[in-house]
Amino acid sequence: MSTVKLWSDGEVEADARVKAVFDDIRSTRKSDFVNNFWRALANQPAVLERTWSRIKAVMVEPGSLDPLTKELIYIAVSTTNSCSYCVHSHTAAARARGLTDEQYAELLAVVGIASETNALANALQIPVDPEFQA
Amino acid sequence: MSTVKLWSDGEVEADARVKAVFDDIRSTRKSDFVNNFWRALANQPAVLERTWSRIKAVMVEPGSLDPLTKELIYIAVSTTNSCSYCVHSHTAAARARGLTDEQYAELLAVVGIASETNALANALQIPVDPEFQA
Amino acid sequence: MSTVKLWSDGEVEADARVKAVFDDIRSTRKSDFVNNFWRALANQPAVLERTWSRIKAVMVEPGSLDPLTKELIYIAVSTTNSCSYCVHSHTAAARARGLTDEQYAELLAVVGIASETNALANALQIPVDPEFQA
Amino acid sequence: MSTVKLWSDGEVEADARVKAVFDDIRSTRKSDFVNNFWRALANQPAVLERTWSRIKAVMVEPGSLDPLTKELIYIAVSTTNSCSYCVHSHTAAARARGLTDEQYAELLAVVGIASETNALANALQIPVDPEFQA
Amino acid sequence: MSTVKLWSDGEVEADARVKAVFDDIRSTRKSDFVNNFWRALANQPAVLERTWSRIKAVMVEPGSLDPLTKELIYIAVSTTNSCSYCVHSHTAAARARGLTDEQYAELLAVVGIASETNALANALQIPVDPEFQA
Amino acid sequence: MSTVKLWSDGEVEADARVKAVFDDIRSTRKSDFVNNFWRALANQPAVLERTWSRIKAVMVEPGSLDPLTKELIYIAVSTTNSCSYCVHSHTAAARARGLTDEQYAELLAVVGIASETNALANALQIPVDPEFQA
Repeated sequence: MSTVKLWSDGEVEADARVKAVFDDIRSTRKSDFVNNFWRALANQPAVLERTWSRIKAVMVEPGSLDPLTKELIYIAVSTTNSCSYCVHSHTAAARARGLTDEQYAELLAVVGIASETNALANALQIPVDPEFQA
Repeated sequence: MSTVKLWSDGEVEADARVKAVFDDIRSTRKSDFVNNFWRALANQPAVLERTWSRIKAVMVEPGSLDPLTKELIYIAVSTTNSCSYCVHSHTAAARARGLTDEQYAELLAVVGIASETNALANALQIPVDPEFQA
Repeated sequence: MSTVKLWSDGEVEADARVKAVFDDIRSTRKSDFVNNFWRALANQPAVLERTWSRIKAVMVEPGSLDPLTKELIYIAVSTTNSCSYCVHSHTAAARARGLTDEQYAELLAVVGIASETNALANALQIPVDPEFQA
Repeated sequence: MSTVKLWSDGEVEADARVKAVFDDIRSTRKSDFVNNFWRALANQPAVLERTWSRIKAVMVEPGSLDPLTKELIYIAVSTTNSCSYCVHSHTAAARARGLTDEQYAELLAVVGIASETNALANALQIPVDPEFQA
Repeated sequence: MSTVKLWSDGEVEADARVKAVFDDIRSTRKSDFVNNFWRALANQPAVLERTWSRIKAVMVEPGSLDPLTKELIYIAVSTTNSCSYCVHSHTAAARARGLTDEQYAELLAVVGIASETNALANALQIPVDPEFQA
Repeated sequence: MSTVKLWSDGEVEADARVKAVFDDIRSTRKSDFVNNFWRALANQPAVLERTWSRIKAVMVEPGSLDPLTKELIYIAVSTTNSCSYCVHSHTAAARARGLTDEQYAELLAVVGIASETNALANALQIPVDPEFQA
């Protein structure tokens, strides 16, 4: 259960500001499906607009990192933050962008070893080598 | 300052078990430089051996994710875990593997928006859509 | 499911030490409803007593921060720690203390931008300006 | 040490895009001092622009939460994320907005008890009460 | 719901590599029950083999920390990382190794006070005393 | 640098409320050394008193977990929360309570594998087995 109401399609239709964002999500993604994240943010139209325009700019528009790589980074952050919803939605997004089973196994291996060595370095309080200076 | 002694090259030379790992790090990386992380782990030879063999298997041996992508994922996890040492060492590693300024800016943008939407989804306790079911 | 039994009202009635805390919760909050957090802590009476006396001192007794502000801070910490239970209980508490939709939207915006800039500052390992010295 | 160069005022002056943001920071804050966070982001102009416009919209423009309350929430998130830089900069910002010693002590008390009860609720895996349903 | 299929006993039987790990889990633990963690990892045989051999080496083989102490440390880390699955599985494992109610209450008290003082030290950015130097 | 002044022994002597706590710390620990954590909390006498009385009750008074085990749990939580100060102070405390190099290596191994499997379980969103029900 969420802390706010999830907007139905009917409620979205009746609110011009929210409808404009949902229309853009649907046309950008070429899909009628709009997931619960946006249906929850619909309660805060300013947050909804800003978050969607950021997601669109960062995750959808072409850049120097390919879309699948960006989803892998997103999953890594979401896993470390223990965000169940985000892990699910971005693992689905990565699959939709072609994630193979072998790539997924390697992602898990990197996230796993990074988590472990993060703990070791934090436990040992290792000083940064001067060679890593920018 | 670290919670344990950082081993000097002289101390490493005098311990066959530790020396074997350091020799393999140097020959694998084709560089004489061995960073403080390994000099701290030298105090626990079993942890040192296991960690290096894992890092080598996951980060060095070829797989379906390219080496730069793996470093980006490592930075994402280390940033989220607030591991200062790991952020420094893996940002340096990513640069050594060809990270461009444009790619770095995009990595920061993805890590930033993921951190923000993780917080929003955790604050709103959004239920996972059945469409994301594996 | 929890890792311990949740105490029913009948079980609470039969244990004088636990009953005393529950009675104080009910009379302090002027409500018969006692939420699951306390029903779980009832298994560890010393932890129950100490936690309730702390919550009462910090969150209920008047001070220089008003009760709603304290709930907003509580939600911010709970969201960042990914504590689902705490997010739910303290969002409900904030609403009971008069949280408006507009204030909630601003809370989400601050928590979101803070999470993002925390990630940026941790990724860039920015040195603290001497001007911030206490 | 940071992972990127911190831009000097001279370097800022020579780059029109970065200079425009720094000028706006200075005029908005009515102060010549621009802290290291912005000098690091200057390396990624798009991230710099977006982050400043977000910070300005969320933290500077008037809304239903007062500026000091927003800084307290920011400190709470930054503390939980273990972001040293952000804790320093936003504690300084809160002081500049009038934070008293008594308020600071209460902030610490709330952040402390929230961190503790988050740990208890996560350890006990307490189920959310239906009464908290939105 | 998980992001991957959970392998049934029938599927395990049909895959020699996965079956070998499950057989070793069953014979090491002297129990037919194999929990969902391993049924999920079965999708990535290399991760499955490596993780089980690590768990066996660290958690099962005798060392200088007794098995119950290791489970308490595991619960402490899992609670702080907000890993619901791991909290459940390792609290069950601690109980199977003889955890008493009194010990559990003390574990909760230590995890609680540590979480609180971690927040205080991070909020106050307290410098490390030279006396703590290794 | 800290966000507050660290109290010198002279300042402590001049404040009866703070002096009472420092006297009790010194007599309880049978040592003249009082570390920076308490010198920072001295600015908030109520937080100082409450925190010391909690630490004394949980960490010093005898119970069913031995003092070294409690320090190991404290280090595990502090490492996961990336609290540099707390890792240093509690690793020193564990050493003062007799931590051997072999025990420290095992602590690191458990914290490491727990961090890794936490990440795997969070990434895979593994459902809790009904067998783990309390």
